[in-house]
Amino acid sequence: MKTTKDPLIGELSAIVGSDAVLFQPEDLLAYECDAYTIHRGMPRAVIFPKTTEEVAAIVKHLHGMRIPFLPRGAGTGLSGGAIPLGGEVIISLVRMKKLLHVDIENRIAVVQPGFVNLKLTHSISDKGYYYAPDPSSQYACTIGGNVAENAGGAHCLKYGVTTNHVLGLEVVLPNGEVIELGGAPDIPGYDLLGFMTGSEGTLGIVTKITVRILKNPEEKQTVLAYFDEVEDASYAVSDIIAAGIVPAALEMMDTVAIEGVECGTYPVGHPPGLRALLLIEVDGIAAGINEQIAEIVDVCKRRNVMDVRVAGDEEERGRWWANRKTAFAAMGTISPDYLVQDGVIPRSRLPEVLDSIRRISETSGLRIANVFHAGDGNLHPLILFDARKPGETDMAVEVGSAVLKVCADVGGTITGEHGVGIEKREEMRYICTDEEIEAQTRIRAVFNPHNLLNADKLFPKPSRCAEMKRIESDR
Amino acid sequence: MKTTKDPLIGELSAIVGSDAVLFQPEDLLAYECDAYTIHRGMPRAVIFPKTTEEVAAIVKHLHGMRIPFLPRGAGTGLSGGAIPLGGEVIISLVRMKKLLHVDIENRIAVVQPGFVNLKLTHSISDKGYYYAPDPSSQYACTIGGNVAENAGGAHCLKYGVTTNHVLGLEVVLPNGEVIELGGAPDIPGYDLLGFMTGSEGTLGIVTKITVRILKNPEEKQTVLAYFDEVEDASYAVSDIIAAGIVPAALEMMDTVAIEGVECGTYPVGHPPGLRALLLIEVDGIAAGINEQIAEIVDVCKRRNVMDVRVAGDEEERGRWWANRKTAFAAMGTISPDYLVQDGVIPRSRLPEVLDSIRRISETSGLRIANVFHAGDGNLHPLILFDARKPGETDMAVEVGSAVLKVCADVGGTITGEHGVGIEKREEMRYICTDEEIEAQTRIRAVFNPHNLLNADKLFPKPSRCAEMKRIESDR
Repeated sequence: MKTTKDPLIGELSAIVGSDAVLFQPEDLLAYECDAYTIHRGMPRAVIFPKTTEEVAAIVKHLHGMRIPFLPRGAGTGLSGGAIPLGGEVIISLVRMKKLLHVDIENRIAVVQPGFVNLKLTHSISDKGYYYAPDPSSQYACTIGGNVAENAGGAHCLKYGVTTNHVLGLEVVLPNGEVIELGGAPDIPGYDLLGFMTGSEGTLGIVTKITVRILKNPEEKQTVLAYFDEVEDASYAVSDIIAAGIVPAALEMMDTVAIEGVECGTYPVGHPPGLRALLLIEVDGIAAGINEQIAEIVDVCKRRNVMDVRVAGDEEERGRWWANRKTAFAAMGTISPDYLVQDGVIPRSRLPEVLDSIRRISETSGLRIANVFHAGDGNLHPLILFDARKPGETDMAVEVGSAVLKVCADVGGTITGEHGVGIEKREEMRYICTDEEIEAQTRIRAVFNPHNLLNADKLFPKPSRCAEMKRIESDR
Repeated sequence: MKTTKDPLIGELSAIVGSDAVLFQPEDLLAYECDAYTIHRGMPRAVIFPKTTEEVAAIVKHLHGMRIPFLPRGAGTGLSGGAIPLGGEVIISLVRMKKLLHVDIENRIAVVQPGFVNLKLTHSISDKGYYYAPDPSSQYACTIGGNVAENAGGAHCLKYGVTTNHVLGLEVVLPNGEVIELGGAPDIPGYDLLGFMTGSEGTLGIVTKITVRILKNPEEKQTVLAYFDEVEDASYAVSDIIAAGIVPAALEMMDTVAIEGVECGTYPVGHPPGLRALLLIEVDGIAAGINEQIAEIVDVCKRRNVMDVRVAGDEEERGRWWANRKTAFAAMGTISPDYLVQDGVIPRSRLPEVLDSIRRISETSGLRIANVFHAGDGNLHPLILFDARKPGETDMAVEVGSAVLKVCADVGGTITGEHGVGIEKREEMRYICTDEEIEAQTRIRAVFNPHNLLNADKLFPKPSRCAEMKRIESDR
């Protein structure tokens, strides 16, 4: 029998049972960080509720005692949103993993937050349906976490990110109150549903999610195109969109990324030294797909493609996607460590931004692999470094910040789908004025007056200027 | 020279010039109501700024003096959002009507709030682009008003409502501060952009809007189908969606609506006594359209369609749409007055809800015409009445509320695209708990601590229960 002097452990155990509370240092170690590993922090305890009522009871108790806490899904987040920097109690939602309801006729599914993303598609594929948002971590990440981060994925170009698929939420507010948001096709009053989605676990803990499910497209076809010049590939991306085609996915990789994936678990034989490849998928009603593919191939040829081909069968298509979707992990084979960034830029600025990133890489001496959702201008520069070398981690963080500055300066933004979390708090200043950050933090305070829920995430510390303004304001 | 004893008029004139302030009772009459005519109220003045700076200066002045105010676009709103119930100063945005910027390559346009919806499409159609949200009032309504109400339209089934097309906003907050929201493809931090969109002019005044523009579809084809039974038409709607087709538009009209449009300005010769018609439009890449149309025709035949045909040319297609888009106005030919409702239901509940509406009509003795976006389950029951007959206006309002109760009870909601405004404040209780309304009003208070901006809209008066809770709460 494990024991502790912390009276909170007994109190939490009384709510959920002692087999649902971790408190020993060796058990807590696994919860020191999520998939963002630059920062770490030890939680006070980890608790595993199974029902909304348990979550509400835990939150009420912690709120009453003014003890800080934060929610956690599968821990696959890339910006540190689930890392306890202030000794928080972690409320893990992995035991709330039920598929509660599927309504094919109205195309909705209702899940608990710990339900794994890909399992939803697996559960409804026999009926010919799927769940569209497909982050690369979809085999592990939970839909609750997807909602918190407003997760994207390769197929978001055509189908949109998580917020476009969430129809309703049940949320436990930071004081333990339970509210329902949405649940119907449109939302009278303020769009609290969209507001909660992507709020990175700082406004409430999602305990039930209603999502839209889609009918499987009748047909999918996938094109792989190799280019000698990054510019040509970039222009091909713009040309495809300009032709009026909205591909389901339009992905790009550069030389370093291609080197990585070819050393990874799913190589497909891309030629060494290749400057850029595009992976383009079109889906929909079968009629017309061939014409779209022909037009995509034509565009690539006009942009000096070296080689372009269409996947011959589902097996080949699957191999190309496995190669792409495991790109982040594959970087581990060519670098001891890597930091993935998540900037967004206007599609038309792709060539110049990639050039700026190349120059940042040269100046810093750190290699950068680019693997990204080219169709929506959502870059994922992977900064390769070695944490054992003194100063390299700090350098990688600096390089990441510099890349985001480039994105912000061309009219883009600092995150497309990974969230701000701990990682990009200060970079919020690249895109927000003090007034804009103030407006957001004032809203957080409405939900979270004692700042108990996932404090220290999402926003920079108020600048002196903003603080002065607050004092002067009559609000 | 007009004169007034109200010192505010001189103060406002000092900001915008005396030719931009109305204050004489005869000038103010036109601003007593918008397209929702059940309630009326006289503004204290109407002011016409031309720039963001003028709006900010006006708001700062009014905020400083604690004088209530509200924004107004073209006054085409259907829920009373622009009606001054408390003697507000109306800030009319119709002189802020510039198209500021078009960027075809990145597919965005930037407009001032008073820019008319349809003008945007007209301004870019020579380049092969258009703006998707198409409320029936699009020839008159402003994009600023569309943002306030999160306006929809017939083509929102495939393309989404206004919030899906707004990429950035410049907003003057109720204290006169100016903030920018969005402006890039994704929004780090809370989704204030989505939150502001559809907030019905209660959180800020939008002074600049960045919207997505779309490439014209290569082809459009339109089907008109007549049915003997409302049920058959309803099932055809579900069957088309279930076949994996997402029509650009999927509209339905019932007997009374058809009678109305045939007496209106654009009759097309629908047979008298017809029970239901569907207007179905498919658009996209030319290849494949014919197959989709063939499948739609097949579905209609399986559902006992009486007659089904495809528009022969653009002229015929245009006539069908003019007939549909002027349906509300056409009701004026068969009834002295009408009240349009805006409920949303799950598509699968269409037959039973239409039946409930029929029974409400019979019980009340008021005729109800149904003309609506069947594809997204967005009903527009038009309640026909005669305001000159004692009690009929009240009866029409009661019938409208009863219809919304039916929608809420089947898991739907009380507004799809017209907003809550004055009209549906109390009906918010059909879909929100006291806690949920509280959460929303707390946020309004953050932006609007003195409740000067469009007070008395959007939310019911707090119930006793909610007030008790607020007092007991430690927040």
